[in-house]
Amino acid sequence: MPDNTAVFDLLAGVRIVDFTQFEAGPSSTEALAWLGAEVVKIENPKMGDPGRRLRPGQPDNDPYYFHVFNANKKSITLNLKSPRGLALVKDMLRRADVCVENYAPGTIERLGLGYDVVRDLNPRIIYAQVKGFGEGSPFEHNLAFDMIAQACGGTFSVTGAPDGPPTRPGISLGDTGTGMLMAITILGALRKRDATGQGSRLQVAMQDAIMHYMRINFATQGLTGKPAQRGGDKVPGVNNAPMGLYPCKPGGPNDYVYLMTSRANPDHWDRLLKLIGREDLIGDALYATPADRVEREPEVDAVIAAWTRHHTKHEAMRLIGDAGIPAGAVLDTMELQNDPSFEQRGIMQVMHHKVHGDFKMPGWPVRVDGKPSRIAPSPVLGEHTDDVLGTWLGLSEADIASLRRDGAL
Amino acid sequence: MPDNTAVFDLLAGVRIVDFTQFEAGPSSTEALAWLGAEVVKIENPKMGDPGRRLRPGQPDNDPYYFHVFNANKKSITLNLKSPRGLALVKDMLRRADVCVENYAPGTIERLGLGYDVVRDLNPRIIYAQVKGFGEGSPFEHNLAFDMIAQACGGTFSVTGAPDGPPTRPGISLGDTGTGMLMAITILGALRKRDATGQGSRLQVAMQDAIMHYMRINFATQGLTGKPAQRGGDKVPGVNNAPMGLYPCKPGGPNDYVYLMTSRANPDHWDRLLKLIGREDLIGDALYATPADRVEREPEVDAVIAAWTRHHTKHEAMRLIGDAGIPAGAVLDTMELQNDPSFEQRGIMQVMHHKVHGDFKMPGWPVRVDGKPSRIAPSPVLGEHTDDVLGTWLGLSEADIASLRRDGAL
Repeated sequence: MPDNTAVFDLLAGVRIVDFTQFEAGPSSTEALAWLGAEVVKIENPKMGDPGRRLRPGQPDNDPYYFHVFNANKKSITLNLKSPRGLALVKDMLRRADVCVENYAPGTIERLGLGYDVVRDLNPRIIYAQVKGFGEGSPFEHNLAFDMIAQACGGTFSVTGAPDGPPTRPGISLGDTGTGMLMAITILGALRKRDATGQGSRLQVAMQDAIMHYMRINFATQGLTGKPAQRGGDKVPGVNNAPMGLYPCKPGGPNDYVYLMTSRANPDHWDRLLKLIGREDLIGDALYATPADRVEREPEVDAVIAAWTRHHTKHEAMRLIGDAGIPAGAVLDTMELQNDPSFEQRGIMQVMHHKVHGDFKMPGWPVRVDGKPSRIAPSPVLGEHTDDVLGTWLGLSEADIASLRRDGAL
Repeated sequence: MPDNTAVFDLLAGVRIVDFTQFEAGPSSTEALAWLGAEVVKIENPKMGDPGRRLRPGQPDNDPYYFHVFNANKKSITLNLKSPRGLALVKDMLRRADVCVENYAPGTIERLGLGYDVVRDLNPRIIYAQVKGFGEGSPFEHNLAFDMIAQACGGTFSVTGAPDGPPTRPGISLGDTGTGMLMAITILGALRKRDATGQGSRLQVAMQDAIMHYMRINFATQGLTGKPAQRGGDKVPGVNNAPMGLYPCKPGGPNDYVYLMTSRANPDHWDRLLKLIGREDLIGDALYATPADRVEREPEVDAVIAAWTRHHTKHEAMRLIGDAGIPAGAVLDTMELQNDPSFEQRGIMQVMHHKVHGDFKMPGWPVRVDGKPSRIAPSPVLGEHTDDVLGTWLGLSEADIASLRRDGAL
């Protein structure tokens, strides 16, 4: 296979001190690493990022969570509670462009590395913080996890069957969704820093970030005057039919195809009827307009399902798509992983990890000049301690040995 | 109320030619506008961005969709199919830092504004494209909408009840989620351009971008060897209890509180039992470890629900949170809109629009030096034609009048 990836150099020379853990912070710094920044995770010497070891007290035998959020980074161990460890990280912060943290509220300040301290060390730094709830919120001091942020940010309220309970979207948008907004702002602040020499303090809360992804729902509420609803597989507020999931053979839990006809393109309905052998309904006044079809939605859906049940979701996606109607099969993670097209295009890549072996995972999906960013392995705990202390701070092997003896590393 | 927002200048001087429509493209350029870039939408003189008018042939009386994705931008009308209109936009591209498009596959090339053409006009430009499916995918030429990308990117397969059908996450992650990844890459490419003078071509597909947000699910599959499952309100693959949604009074569709006890912190379970008046169960061997509680999850959930049913979700969130256990009420869009804390903190702001009146919406949630970016109204179609043609290209009123007569604007 020809090399379908490239080592990105968009952020060449950008140095990031990374105090992040779990997902919301790490997803943000990983995006910057994929673009070419040098991201150095600062980890405690005992256990490192708790995301390395989701099962406390057990061996680190589920490394995939860590891999997916920490590819292309370096790791150094530093005991931030030792005076020499703290002094070292301050030296690093003096030489850094960006630092990012997502500890529990109050932690970074207790470590002696709050914003005021770090700004005084380095007024050019971008100091970025991710928390669960925003400064000034009644819940400012509360812990949050992805599910909490999603519940409080609204996504549960709009997900699930119309007559069923609120439902968790199956993706960790409270974490990675927040991380992406922070990465954008860091890069904006870096541009200002380059132009003016002036750093910035950046803060984002997961609850607030979720609302950014809920904007369609707020727009729908603007129209209806009611809280945005749950719609199962439909999109509440969009008065259009047919649209939705249709069952395919052989009837497994994900054997469905999503199709939607456009309100802006009346041909879609006629094309669909032709494809499914129901030309008899073309021009039938009962189904002529999107509004008519919404009124008779159960009938319309039954007509389509009678055809889709005779096809696999892959056939249905191809045939409906070829007829010029937007359609997509419901794919599960195994189908996505096993589809060779993603690996051929560099969208999924195999991480070769010297301890944990090979793991295929999605990388940064945006291509630059035709190629996605090449995945490098997530770091072993402390793998780059000597390298980084040497290149950033000019420390010798003897210096490092002394720090180690002293419990600073 | 003191001014709780600021006009961001992070991207001061950055000029963006914006060919985007609907959501995936516009969300990306809007993020850059919020950071201070000058984003100029190029719209066709008749109808503009189809996102302005979701109901074809009807008056533009549902502007909220357009507002939420086009705040802080300028709009000019240009007839790209007229020779003078095309020449004008080429002049703009010569002076731009970035251009972004998300037309249907092949459209930008048919307009005579494909990558090769634009790069020759301006080798320093960042040329960014958002499509449904990736270059080289079997579905490269297919149309996609958010729901299609989400079905094909995996989110439906992991959302919904364990024994129910695949379910649409209620947020448009295929669109805005993709837009955010593009915004990050644009800013990275801009930094390289500043350093080297060299532009880049950027491409992202919505299906591929969705997989970025599915990484936890791929990690879970790595552990289990099986496709990632749906879990309703629980998180499949996380063997922990109690965690999930618990019903609150008065029993409305969103009257639930999410709580999770941490596997890493055995105190959470004891604290919870104390809070709910079930000290009798503290130390009970039947429920001692997370594994024990997973085994007896229905019982454990019933014990908690017996307490939550006597509290509103707001009371429950406060009481559980105060006891040091992560918890969050399920909030709907109306509750979020009416909660004064978001407006006080500048996370929600009122857009004052001269045609459509006032509309409260979430803005850019990341604070810079303590304040979020101030929302400016979405532009009326062609509102800035004279302004932009004057400041970017030095055209006079007479030039512009001539172009207008000629049907170029």
